[in-house]
Amino acid sequence: MNEFEIIQHYFTGPIRFDSPHLVTGPGDDCAVVRVPPESELCVSTDTLLAGVHFPDDAAGALVANRALAANLSDLAAMGAEPYGFTLALTLAEYSDSFLSSFSEQLKWLVEEYKLPLIGGNMARGQLSVTINIMGLVPVGTAILRSGAQPGDDIYVTGYLGDAAGGLANVLSGDKNAGSKQMNQRYSQPVPRLLLGQQIRAIATAAIDISDGFTADLGHLCKASRVGASVQLKSLPISDSLIAQFGLESAQRMALQGGDDYELCFTVAENRAHDMAELNAASSLLLTKIGSIGRAPGVEIVDEYGKSVDVIKGYQHF
Amino acid sequence: MNEFEIIQHYFTGPIRFDSPHLVTGPGDDCAVVRVPPESELCVSTDTLLAGVHFPDDAAGALVANRALAANLSDLAAMGAEPYGFTLALTLAEYSDSFLSSFSEQLKWLVEEYKLPLIGGNMARGQLSVTINIMGLVPVGTAILRSGAQPGDDIYVTGYLGDAAGGLANVLSGDKNAGSKQMNQRYSQPVPRLLLGQQIRAIATAAIDISDGFTADLGHLCKASRVGASVQLKSLPISDSLIAQFGLESAQRMALQGGDDYELCFTVAENRAHDMAELNAASSLLLTKIGSIGRAPGVEIVDEYGKSVDVIKGYQHF
Repeated sequence: MNEFEIIQHYFTGPIRFDSPHLVTGPGDDCAVVRVPPESELCVSTDTLLAGVHFPDDAAGALVANRALAANLSDLAAMGAEPYGFTLALTLAEYSDSFLSSFSEQLKWLVEEYKLPLIGGNMARGQLSVTINIMGLVPVGTAILRSGAQPGDDIYVTGYLGDAAGGLANVLSGDKNAGSKQMNQRYSQPVPRLLLGQQIRAIATAAIDISDGFTADLGHLCKASRVGASVQLKSLPISDSLIAQFGLESAQRMALQGGDDYELCFTVAENRAHDMAELNAASSLLLTKIGSIGRAPGVEIVDEYGKSVDVIKGYQHF
Repeated sequence: MNEFEIIQHYFTGPIRFDSPHLVTGPGDDCAVVRVPPESELCVSTDTLLAGVHFPDDAAGALVANRALAANLSDLAAMGAEPYGFTLALTLAEYSDSFLSSFSEQLKWLVEEYKLPLIGGNMARGQLSVTINIMGLVPVGTAILRSGAQPGDDIYVTGYLGDAAGGLANVLSGDKNAGSKQMNQRYSQPVPRLLLGQQIRAIATAAIDISDGFTADLGHLCKASRVGASVQLKSLPISDSLIAQFGLESAQRMALQGGDDYELCFTVAENRAHDMAELNAASSLLLTKIGSIGRAPGVEIVDEYGKSVDVIKGYQHF
């Protein structure tokens, strides 16, 4: 199959979602979309590479799940709802098994998230997936990284470190290792889109956890020109992660493990009531894990109030 | 330098263009942009890979020129004006010479085309550049590939094949080979943005020439469910290309050479007057090279009306 046949067979043919915003879909020089006048557009791009972001022999479905989650998670961190995406795929050679698995999962995700695939590109090279995602927020309501204030409480969604545990289990080759729930946080991460939209009016700042909790909270603090103090003991760590790796390793994975795709956000102290209400209404675990201060940097403190060495997130160079 | 330092030093720091549409620029989880209510958004993505789309040792400036031109050319083919772009860069290793040359040229292009860089991603891998570009058209005016009708005249802008000649000269390593104008069509292609906007009300269909003239006209015909007949003798081929490669090779390069980033478009016969006016007003060469018919496929005919073998465009698989 040549590139046009691949695109037709695996992508633009079978993967369709008729968005009311889509004027002209894939297949032309550009897609044409309409943005409702009461909305602003959130745009982000993320690349996942074989051997870096997923194992070389990863199944197509896993790559599709993780590539789309990485991008949807950026929308979640802004409080945006999914609008559409483009896909640039490079592939070392034609592989029906990879392309079938990848495109079938993508089709499922497109329908699940009501996210039309509006365009793409395909070329021969090291296996990589670059997604450019677009989302909508009501004008002026996007949650930025830069709004955190000293005194704000810091929250995270879900459990931290499970994706790192899931990755370790994938790499071990032992299909029975670890709990299903933990492993799915790596293989099938669920971006926190609804929660992102629910905190638009409450959060002062938000970021998604992709490089690792400590690193990402550090990005938020830097953008807000503040610092953070985090109680090690408050970190939400799943029983499965602790059972498999022990408490110390689990804490390290929670602090430095990338790709959890949970949200970390800050809330003014006087909004504690709103957070309690949200917590009661939400099926998602929401944990207060520390507070914002004036001194720059992210300090992790143990149960005795003593500073613990901070471990950096993943860096590409 | 780690990825964040690279991004800060070469990209988000020095490369700025303050678009009135940009609410939040790069550095957050997403950029936030506003689309004027009277406009629609055109979106396209293109990847350029080392060893496929440009030589492994290409200078950063050449890569920047060609990556942005490939994407801007897609906007031109829709009649859109530039609005913003994201950049996903993978790099085998940190290289100041590549990054300096790439980012300085990008800065120039951002200002030249008033095109803010609104976000990006950087990772370690085979050198590649994926750009996702956005443009604006007044609602309902985007030129599609699918509007060509039997009887329409077919036009192209500029000269065909010069980029293929320029590439041959780059690969030869002989810095004195070929004319400057021809070589620039490869190293510094100028997307036909203004012309694209000028033909919005005239053209029935348009496509940009990236895979090669014959292949791209074939895409347009397929989308319009028509066919095309093209006079070999009418193809606009530069004197430089013929002087360097001879007529036959020059014609082959014009028909199959990719990456000219000229526009090919169709115009109803009864708009010949508008085309004559546009031709008189435009500084760009506009050549009528054939007409649309009912029989599918692209037929190239010689000066005796005899069909000439059609040569396919570049295919990745």
